[in-house]
Amino acid sequence: MEERYGHHMTPAAFRRHGRAVVDWIADYMERVEEFPVLSQVDPGTLRAQLPASPPEQGEPFERILGDVDRLVMPGITHWQSPSFFGYFPANASGPSILGELLSAGLGVQGMLWATSPACTELETHVLDWMVELLGLPAPFLSTGEGGGVIQDSASSATLCALLAARERATAGAATARGVDRPLAVYATDQAHSSVEKAVRIAGLGTDLLRTVPTDAGHGMDPVALRQLVDADLAAGVTPCMVVGTVGTTSSNVIDPLPLIGEVARDLGVWFHVDAAMSGTAAVCAELRWIHDGLELADSYCTNPHKWLFVNFDCDVFYVADRGALVRALSILPEYLRNQATETGSVIDYRDWHVPLGRRFRALKLWFVLRHYGAEGLRHHVREHVALTRELASWIEADPDFELAAPAPLNLVCFRYRSARDPEKANRRLLETLNASGELYLTHTVLDGRFTLRLSIGALATRREHVEAAWECIRATARAGEPDAG
Amino acid sequence: MEERYGHHMTPAAFRRHGRAVVDWIADYMERVEEFPVLSQVDPGTLRAQLPASPPEQGEPFERILGDVDRLVMPGITHWQSPSFFGYFPANASGPSILGELLSAGLGVQGMLWATSPACTELETHVLDWMVELLGLPAPFLSTGEGGGVIQDSASSATLCALLAARERATAGAATARGVDRPLAVYATDQAHSSVEKAVRIAGLGTDLLRTVPTDAGHGMDPVALRQLVDADLAAGVTPCMVVGTVGTTSSNVIDPLPLIGEVARDLGVWFHVDAAMSGTAAVCAELRWIHDGLELADSYCTNPHKWLFVNFDCDVFYVADRGALVRALSILPEYLRNQATETGSVIDYRDWHVPLGRRFRALKLWFVLRHYGAEGLRHHVREHVALTRELASWIEADPDFELAAPAPLNLVCFRYRSARDPEKANRRLLETLNASGELYLTHTVLDGRFTLRLSIGALATRREHVEAAWECIRATARAGEPDAG
Repeated sequence: MEERYGHHMTPAAFRRHGRAVVDWIADYMERVEEFPVLSQVDPGTLRAQLPASPPEQGEPFERILGDVDRLVMPGITHWQSPSFFGYFPANASGPSILGELLSAGLGVQGMLWATSPACTELETHVLDWMVELLGLPAPFLSTGEGGGVIQDSASSATLCALLAARERATAGAATARGVDRPLAVYATDQAHSSVEKAVRIAGLGTDLLRTVPTDAGHGMDPVALRQLVDADLAAGVTPCMVVGTVGTTSSNVIDPLPLIGEVARDLGVWFHVDAAMSGTAAVCAELRWIHDGLELADSYCTNPHKWLFVNFDCDVFYVADRGALVRALSILPEYLRNQATETGSVIDYRDWHVPLGRRFRALKLWFVLRHYGAEGLRHHVREHVALTRELASWIEADPDFELAAPAPLNLVCFRYRSARDPEKANRRLLETLNASGELYLTHTVLDGRFTLRLSIGALATRREHVEAAWECIRATARAGEPDAG
Repeated sequence: MEERYGHHMTPAAFRRHGRAVVDWIADYMERVEEFPVLSQVDPGTLRAQLPASPPEQGEPFERILGDVDRLVMPGITHWQSPSFFGYFPANASGPSILGELLSAGLGVQGMLWATSPACTELETHVLDWMVELLGLPAPFLSTGEGGGVIQDSASSATLCALLAARERATAGAATARGVDRPLAVYATDQAHSSVEKAVRIAGLGTDLLRTVPTDAGHGMDPVALRQLVDADLAAGVTPCMVVGTVGTTSSNVIDPLPLIGEVARDLGVWFHVDAAMSGTAAVCAELRWIHDGLELADSYCTNPHKWLFVNFDCDVFYVADRGALVRALSILPEYLRNQATETGSVIDYRDWHVPLGRRFRALKLWFVLRHYGAEGLRHHVREHVALTRELASWIEADPDFELAAPAPLNLVCFRYRSARDPEKANRRLLETLNASGELYLTHTVLDGRFTLRLSIGALATRREHVEAAWECIRATARAGEPDAG
């Protein structure tokens, strides 16, 4: 045994330590509410406690796991806490964690169909399932000209959408000879920062990211979009891509996809829809209106790793025409040639994103869809939407607070209406709340005003946590007034 | 319990199912030799067995795990098999799998220091450890102007190196106003395909990827490099980046870094060193010569997810000047603003790569370094290098075979010297070997000739597997001769 395994962990030891880690996580699930939601450490706290050099001799696993409790845990912000309301949810459900574990244990590479056929085929199949589950347009199915792929994040999906759009807009010339004519991208100032990041990476230049004006509700103004595109066409700039958002990060705005799609179709611009945050809502038939107009889109992404209980990373990215994407990214060196690829009858996902290697991420998505079933997913999404609307109604009913935006899905944007200095009062309120460790929320700026964001979508969040959060927010706000107490 | 958890998996159920998955993986480790290394299924086999639609009701976990055995396993190519000699190793060691599991269970997002300080600090610290472990130049330490970050793959690292190089070469103009002047990248035809992919993505155009001639051993000719750069400078093309490779994928060639670095320094070109495959060898002092000249590099990457027993994904990417990288990729929308970031005293890794979100991947690297210790890692790397050299000596001693390239580390390139049609005979040999399921190897083309590649670095591979592989190769080659038998 010793000779066979050398310094490697034997299967017997793996069984033992694996159980310890599984128990550790189950304990964590049970006690996650006991931790301050936001880590309270100062910069450098962890590093100061770690040895300056890597260990020369191996150490027992028990000691390593003990150091997780002792050293790492104080520096953790608890995204799995039921009182985590910041940014957006990032759920790690039981079946998803176990899918990730199995993927790590199998340790296969899915860069080519041939390097593990099941890794590719399960992904294609489950992404087709997602089309049905979310009621997405049929062109995104792999059975036609389109198809889906798992990306690490919506940032990467948006980049890939832009690369495919550029390939189409330049008929491949950009790939071969570089960007020799200006290419413009259109989005509102509410679109995710990853749009600008993609524009930079692709070398278009942020000057060519056109900020499309919005209406009073922060949604894209399609008339203004048409004017911008027309002006670019007249000026010799090639319109490359327009990005519509379903559920902006700032305030959950849903852009008017049907009207944007019409402009895009008329003027030949690639239409990418970023539903990273909110696409999951479409598991419920009564919320599918968020995707109205999606049939006009060339590409789409949403993040099961946000609200669909799949642990990060799992963004699902779809294109209606996979040809443009693959032409933009496919390079076939000799050492990757194989019979299956040569026949053209299989998908090689390495041509669908930036990295070459890829994990078997479809397993965790498959596990989640089968564990919950469509019914279970709908149940929990409905619960979060109902809690969000309930909180919004409490805020509306309280004269000391105001809603800063509609709350159709899983995000409430609001402000404390302090008589003195609302800007300062709301900033102080956020800091005090987060420093308490009782709950965690983040902020945005809407119409130039500092605004609190509270997103309800963590899998452990129940009505009592939302009630407690609201009580804490009210009490803290009032205690912060100079004349309080 | 039912009400509290709804459709979620309860902690108690997670304990039970988690143990089942841990046992499944331990069983897999014990029986991995029993499977055909290369999956023997035809395209479509898995998809034909899966339901066309996602399940409406949730299913018991036991059934899902049972379907992994029944449906998924026939479509798996066993990268963890001791007889997997294809491409490069992709090891999933016990401590790494458990680090991945813990990361999934914690479910934190490391996009900002503030979103989980320990996630960022452990990564920075362990990447500084790696500098010491591999004897990398001090400018890559985070304590100076440089630093390291975990990327998903060397492809992404190469892209990020190019973005930083472009930022420096254009003093930021490319980011703001797009690529308005041609930018050239230099690499040999033996460099990884990700160099061309990065050139495409960044919008430089593959026309501007200069193929630097090589010497007889396939290493970059630095004199030719200087001529190419000079010619570009004379023609108004901005030299942007040169890529040197430590261990090419095709045949493990090590480019002459000191000479390339001298040209890069003289002419102001960003020097990226891609040691994805072979950097791990530097854990052994006697193999550190592979990094000679690395002190002249601006950036560097290697993949612990190949040979350092960390499961995919874990590429470590270093820059000597983090400023250029961060300037190329940093965008700060309001909803990501926070006090720690504003002070400038912390690292926000979202600015170091394409995606915004990121998992806690430092855990698995930390677990591996502590479980093995430097001593354990050296032990196994030395074992693989010794086995590789032994196999190379057997091939050299056999008149029916020939070495196609030196085998300094963990890859042997060789051919069967068939008297009739060597090209056809070697192709047939590869197909027959892989179809047998006994072992798996891949190929390349060197000097225009079809060449077998056998990489020794899977953690389960012992001397007996290399011996068995060699016997199988010899027997199969001879049986394939028309006059055999």
